[in-house]
Amino acid sequence: MQEPRILQVRTQILKKNDELARSMREQFLQAGVFVSNWVSSPGSGKTTLLLETLTHLRNIGQRVAAIVGDLETDNDAQRLAQSGAPVRQIMTHGCCHLEANMVEEQLHNWSLSDFDYLFVENVGNLVCPTSWDLGESLRVALLSVTEGEDKPLKYPGLFNTSDVAVLTKIDLSGPCDFDRDRALENIQRVRPGMPVFELSAKSGEGLDRWFQFLIHQRSATMG
Amino acid sequence: MQEPRILQVRTQILKKNDELARSMREQFLQAGVFVSNWVSSPGSGKTTLLLETLTHLRNIGQRVAAIVGDLETDNDAQRLAQSGAPVRQIMTHGCCHLEANMVEEQLHNWSLSDFDYLFVENVGNLVCPTSWDLGESLRVALLSVTEGEDKPLKYPGLFNTSDVAVLTKIDLSGPCDFDRDRALENIQRVRPGMPVFELSAKSGEGLDRWFQFLIHQRSATMG
Repeated sequence: MQEPRILQVRTQILKKNDELARSMREQFLQAGVFVSNWVSSPGSGKTTLLLETLTHLRNIGQRVAAIVGDLETDNDAQRLAQSGAPVRQIMTHGCCHLEANMVEEQLHNWSLSDFDYLFVENVGNLVCPTSWDLGESLRVALLSVTEGEDKPLKYPGLFNTSDVAVLTKIDLSGPCDFDRDRALENIQRVRPGMPVFELSAKSGEGLDRWFQFLIHQRSATMG
Repeated sequence: MQEPRILQVRTQILKKNDELARSMREQFLQAGVFVSNWVSSPGSGKTTLLLETLTHLRNIGQRVAAIVGDLETDNDAQRLAQSGAPVRQIMTHGCCHLEANMVEEQLHNWSLSDFDYLFVENVGNLVCPTSWDLGESLRVALLSVTEGEDKPLKYPGLFNTSDVAVLTKIDLSGPCDFDRDRALENIQRVRPGMPVFELSAKSGEGLDRWFQFLIHQRSATMG
């Protein structure tokens, strides 16, 4: 469907992105900051879960920060700032994903070693963010129960490139007639062995296990 | 964020797409087939509403067909075929939107004048399909109440390029604490005067008005 020429240019840009992401990853690890990249559809509840996560980690003495991407508006940064954590907003003005250099630009004047965790909330999109490494140590694929059980099969790229899946809004499973077994089966079909967390940021169900996972992952990554 | 060279190549490809879309639009109008292009997030309920729409229009004697785009799987085409309408599936294998030539390829061996309506269900994505004209006469932006009220502000491109907005899954407004007034206000802020339909394919609420709108739009377009 694409001309060979645009493919070539895209490959070059992706290569440049990957090189930058690799050096950012080294920088993050040296500074002791654990970076995760959260990817999902628009409206799957990324920001609400991130607000809970920032608030909880701060309450137990962890030093956290967040960078959030949207096409337009700084609504999400304003919401996340309620946690008391430093938050920066990337407005992509039409670009459908974050790229490593967009994240790097936001790091200026931050001393990375001041943070234990840096959360990057990507633009709401199940396709395009998949190809762009942001230097993260953990890529999180979020899927709301309102979106249906078939999404892992339809968007295998995201699940294949992510380290963990989070099923959000499980308080709505009943009203949505959500078939949990089928959803879990579809995730395992696309990415066998993928850890899955099921939670509701609204009811609080499943949050503790999620927080513990993040803390454990940081320890395991930082050694 | 982008190199000038890739922008230039993109502009050329978009121009080629627009030329093809323009000739397809003329072809559709001459054949008397009313084409709509449905765009939304993954999981907003496009396929379920489309199944209801195809079934209803067939029941009242209209000749309908559908083309549905997904990265992978032909699940949606199989579901839509339950309506009895001819349905074709485009698998984009990673591409995040439909392009005019992908739709054109699916038209082979179809006689367009056999149809009154052709529905094109785009890949689930609030960003990328926006830039690609498929030759449609009506672009439909769908938004589920589960996605939150702020989406029109965050994804203004889609609402600016669409002719009509559809709020889906209104049966879930209660469990989702959906703020209807704010959602409608945000749509009007981004695109003043945009017609909005509120409906639930599950409960049936609002469907009649939606079907009538489509029938009226076809008459108005075909003259």
